[in-house]
Amino acid sequence: MRIITISREFGSGGRELGKRLAEELGFDYYDREIISAISQNQGLDEKYVENTLENQGWRDIPIVYRQSFTSYLSINNSKINILVEQKKVIEKIASLNKDFVIVGQNADIILSEYKPFNIFVCASMESKIKRCEERANENEKLTKKEIEKNIKRIDKNRSKNREIVTNKIWGDRESYHLIINTTDWEIKKLVPAVKDYVINYWGQ
Amino acid sequence: MRIITISREFGSGGRELGKRLAEELGFDYYDREIISAISQNQGLDEKYVENTLENQGWRDIPIVYRQSFTSYLSINNSKINILVEQKKVIEKIASLNKDFVIVGQNADIILSEYKPFNIFVCASMESKIKRCEERANENEKLTKKEIEKNIKRIDKNRSKNREIVTNKIWGDRESYHLIINTTDWEIKKLVPAVKDYVINYWGQ
Repeated sequence: MRIITISREFGSGGRELGKRLAEELGFDYYDREIISAISQNQGLDEKYVENTLENQGWRDIPIVYRQSFTSYLSINNSKINILVEQKKVIEKIASLNKDFVIVGQNADIILSEYKPFNIFVCASMESKIKRCEERANENEKLTKKEIEKNIKRIDKNRSKNREIVTNKIWGDRESYHLIINTTDWEIKKLVPAVKDYVINYWGQ
Repeated sequence: MRIITISREFGSGGRELGKRLAEELGFDYYDREIISAISQNQGLDEKYVENTLENQGWRDIPIVYRQSFTSYLSINNSKINILVEQKKVIEKIASLNKDFVIVGQNADIILSEYKPFNIFVCASMESKIKRCEERANENEKLTKKEIEKNIKRIDKNRSKNREIVTNKIWGDRESYHLIINTTDWEIKKLVPAVKDYVINYWGQ
């Protein structure tokens, strides 16, 4: 079974890259499906699950438990249940024994025993703002400054969550096989390059 | 003209990657040739030039001049002359208007107006030590601990020099198009993957 995990800065196009890469390779693709599965299994609201995993949810967890993932297991707390459920859901996906691409979710750590190919996607702030502007719909017109603030907030949370849950630094070059800077790339045109790279890796 | 610059952690195989990539692509290749040219042009010893550019040479430069590359230009100092000469030599190479690969030398910054494709090569410490052991000849048998110390010292200097000369952080993901982790790769087998990636970038 071949697995590609994608971690990404907000607005870098990492999600689009993951999706297109899965299509190109004929792999399964997991992203928001995991949030849905967790919320169904735990009887929780999707928005709440997402917030817990990606945003402010960590503030309430007592600092003494912020050691390692395993220390969470014995604590009764809905936020910790979400983490445990996330791990379960991702392990269930792996147990299907079918090639897949997974975006976010600290999947590179959770799946490390399967030796996934781990990609981190980044871009210049200017390029991330531009991508967010293009993606925005009519109802969410933000100024460049507001978008930049959002990007920084979301990435700060991702970074903090990763550190708390995995003891690893988010975006640290030692943790990934490949760090891709999407500045000046159209994601669609980047896909064949990444595909060839990964296939070469597996083929060696 | 297409240019690939390669920055690398010591022992990551970045130099070998650059050389093989140049061969594969039919590009010119520059590395130690630049040190030789500088020392000839300035009538200095090669070892001294290398030390100045890669090692401890920075200590003597007054901190007030550590602002930007251009502020060096008016100062009479053999170390600064070396920097100016380095810039000249690299610009002369670019003026030949032939595709090339260049390793080290802060070439990504010096050549930025030519829009080079910038690669950073890294690897796990374990893998770097292993590569250094394989490369060592009979006369330089070091313990793992000594090798690790060497790697850390050289990379610390590279990092510091880059910061002083360019005001940029060494290995920072925003500065490169691609960061390649060579852990578990044989460099020879990595070359086609990187070649395809770069060609895709230029072709888009």
